[in-house]
Amino acid sequence: MASMEALFANVPGGNLQFPKTRRTGFPGGAMVRLRRVYGGAARVRCGLIEPDGGKLVELVAPAGPEREAIRKEATLAGGLPRIKLSRIDLQWVHVLSEGWASPLRGFMREAEFLQTLHFNCLRMPDGSVVNMSVPIVLAVDDLQKRAVEGRDRVVLVDANGNPVAILKDIEIFKHNKEERIARTWGTTAPGLPYVEETITNAGNWLIGGDLDVIEPVKYNDGLDQYRLSPAELREEFTKRNADAVFAFQLRNPVHNGHALLMTDTRKRLLEMGYKNPILLLHPLGGYTKADDVPLSWRMKQHEKVLEEGVLDPDTTVVAIFPSPMHYAGPTEVQWHAKSRINAGANFYIVGRDPAGMGHPLENRDLYDADHGKKVLKMAPGLERLNILPFKVAAYDNTQRKMAFFDHSRPQDFLFISGTKMRNLAKNRENPPDGFMCPGGWKVLVEYYDSVASGTKIRQPVPA
Amino acid sequence: MASMEALFANVPGGNLQFPKTRRTGFPGGAMVRLRRVYGGAARVRCGLIEPDGGKLVELVAPAGPEREAIRKEATLAGGLPRIKLSRIDLQWVHVLSEGWASPLRGFMREAEFLQTLHFNCLRMPDGSVVNMSVPIVLAVDDLQKRAVEGRDRVVLVDANGNPVAILKDIEIFKHNKEERIARTWGTTAPGLPYVEETITNAGNWLIGGDLDVIEPVKYNDGLDQYRLSPAELREEFTKRNADAVFAFQLRNPVHNGHALLMTDTRKRLLEMGYKNPILLLHPLGGYTKADDVPLSWRMKQHEKVLEEGVLDPDTTVVAIFPSPMHYAGPTEVQWHAKSRINAGANFYIVGRDPAGMGHPLENRDLYDADHGKKVLKMAPGLERLNILPFKVAAYDNTQRKMAFFDHSRPQDFLFISGTKMRNLAKNRENPPDGFMCPGGWKVLVEYYDSVASGTKIRQPVPA
Repeated sequence: MASMEALFANVPGGNLQFPKTRRTGFPGGAMVRLRRVYGGAARVRCGLIEPDGGKLVELVAPAGPEREAIRKEATLAGGLPRIKLSRIDLQWVHVLSEGWASPLRGFMREAEFLQTLHFNCLRMPDGSVVNMSVPIVLAVDDLQKRAVEGRDRVVLVDANGNPVAILKDIEIFKHNKEERIARTWGTTAPGLPYVEETITNAGNWLIGGDLDVIEPVKYNDGLDQYRLSPAELREEFTKRNADAVFAFQLRNPVHNGHALLMTDTRKRLLEMGYKNPILLLHPLGGYTKADDVPLSWRMKQHEKVLEEGVLDPDTTVVAIFPSPMHYAGPTEVQWHAKSRINAGANFYIVGRDPAGMGHPLENRDLYDADHGKKVLKMAPGLERLNILPFKVAAYDNTQRKMAFFDHSRPQDFLFISGTKMRNLAKNRENPPDGFMCPGGWKVLVEYYDSVASGTKIRQPVPA
Repeated sequence: MASMEALFANVPGGNLQFPKTRRTGFPGGAMVRLRRVYGGAARVRCGLIEPDGGKLVELVAPAGPEREAIRKEATLAGGLPRIKLSRIDLQWVHVLSEGWASPLRGFMREAEFLQTLHFNCLRMPDGSVVNMSVPIVLAVDDLQKRAVEGRDRVVLVDANGNPVAILKDIEIFKHNKEERIARTWGTTAPGLPYVEETITNAGNWLIGGDLDVIEPVKYNDGLDQYRLSPAELREEFTKRNADAVFAFQLRNPVHNGHALLMTDTRKRLLEMGYKNPILLLHPLGGYTKADDVPLSWRMKQHEKVLEEGVLDPDTTVVAIFPSPMHYAGPTEVQWHAKSRINAGANFYIVGRDPAGMGHPLENRDLYDADHGKKVLKMAPGLERLNILPFKVAAYDNTQRKMAFFDHSRPQDFLFISGTKMRNLAKNRENPPDGFMCPGGWKVLVEYYDSVASGTKIRQPVPA
């Protein structure tokens, strides 16, 4: 049976801990070479979609004298002012450092922030447009603002005070929270998870600038080997001779309806004439709201799904997308799509109500279920990406498996919502046979058991 | 002394009533010719900026059999379903009918609505982009929706039940008011004037479609002759051999600081090498909030300002911009600029906090005073327009006149805010000499007298 590792790189082994040698496949030297490859003529050779802005941004200093010089500046006693990053700020540093947000080179300055809020896209110096729908910003309070005023660079440090990066050519501007929230979420209702977590109590200023990141961001939670950068993913797709890459963003357990969809998408791409379409199965690994299944459990669940042979390891790459989750529906789905272009995906599967959630105050979904798909197809800067709308899958009682919904015989289909699935797992009940592979279901039940019993199973995952 | 009429077309006479012959300068035949001129090679000849979408949209049926056929269909007993237009809906029909919103051909369908909300611009079939920042939509309630379902066209009627237009190939979609408000205004605070006037109590559906407007929209308020369409303005600019047109949007009385700015702009354009820059002085004539000075009084005030020789009639065209006012700051200023491109303006003067207002709940301005200017310069679809930032003018006590603020001697300058100006006029006090021409000030004082005494001076103006 295929394990996740096998899916990723055909390395034998059956648990989440990749052999150490896995990482050594991507030494610093190779990364430097990669950087050159993606910027120039080799793009044509590898056939992958070009990153936004034409060149993949990578902000981690190369190991060696350059890194050490930055580290020295960042640690110098009495040196630069320091700003402490929250857990989610650090996730954004990670996202920026690897170029998921190419061509952004750091936290947004006001010009980028305003364009994101008003237009969901950035105009490049050559007049071209790239998509950028969610603000990637760093908030500071009045005290911090005063401490850095007159300086042109600051050190960003983690929760333990360890330097992570230097932010250069800084610009400080007003953090108009109400306007940011209204234009990003289309509501200002209290109870939006990302807002409560990162905005409500944040400072009244934003600090933008270019990042020099000292070394790759790591979480040491046993999952770092799944956190492949866009450059690493591009190398993997190239190695596999992919002529199409289709990305599937998810933050939920995978059931057989998802698997059907992914398998079917590959079939459609083959029918379109592609010879070797590769699936990027790409669970979101940053901040998620409290009632979502935590990343470590989702990864265990995905592993079981894959071990039990639901997807083909030769045509699937599993990796973690390091971004935090906004739950901003049609605005956020653009970010989910745009960042995957930077990782080499030229097809993006979009589902019903992507990045949506219930309205915090009203008994309805916050977004129209079709708006995400529609907005994605219209979004400036995403014209190069092929949007593949999700076909609706449900449990077919006649076939006793997940199948595409057949409008001619609706009575045969059972829709199992996320809520229903969670309730079944919480109550240790089983879904109908064929809804999810047994091993995957068992992981879900275990997770809810651990929550119900109050067992504090160690959660090393940041999200 | 120059009257407004003289400013408009060098026709002698000193009051707001243009001689009837004024209108006869634009017979139907000439309009048809104009339409041809702006679509094709003659653009080069006249030198005006091309309308958005390449062709000025005009939706009023030509007088004759075509108009009569539409009128007949619209009035047929037992014929098409009817939707009654509010005062502001009718203003939007007016705006659309004359092509201010080119290339829009009617009230927005969902694809246009979503692009406006998320991107402030529309992608054209050829891949080009035009700016469109405020939703131009028509709301219907559940009853009206049921009445038109299954039909592909409806009649729009005015408050008296008279047919105004036919809306064709209709599409009905959800009016998500909260999301519309949040994304347009960047707040959902109660107390936004346009929201309270047109959205809060509006129906839960929007109906989009293409318009066939039966005849030009008129208000019969003595000001219709100032309501020049984009085609009429383009003809006027062409007649005057304008090689640059600079638009000044306003919804307030004109003081000498404004006049200084307009005169100075012309000087700068001459210095840039233009031979004949023409000013479009373009007061907004649609809905405004209750504490703004009504259109009829503003027009009287503008007339005095012009009679007293503050602006040069040979290089100024005065006309009314028929749009309602959103007070949506950086979002709305794009609409104010974009619509003037369609009228032939290639320069746009933008002030401090354009289309702004106080926050309805908090003691601050709703928008950052600089955001309008910044957003305008970044806005997709406005790349062709030259944005001229307002220089700050204030009352210079040493010169006893309005002058550009001199940072080297701030103590010499007096800032007279709109609130201060209104309070002076309300109290029948005079501003410092040289702030506004005496005749213009007298009109303002008269207006506030009429409000204070409760005198109901007839206000035929719709706004």
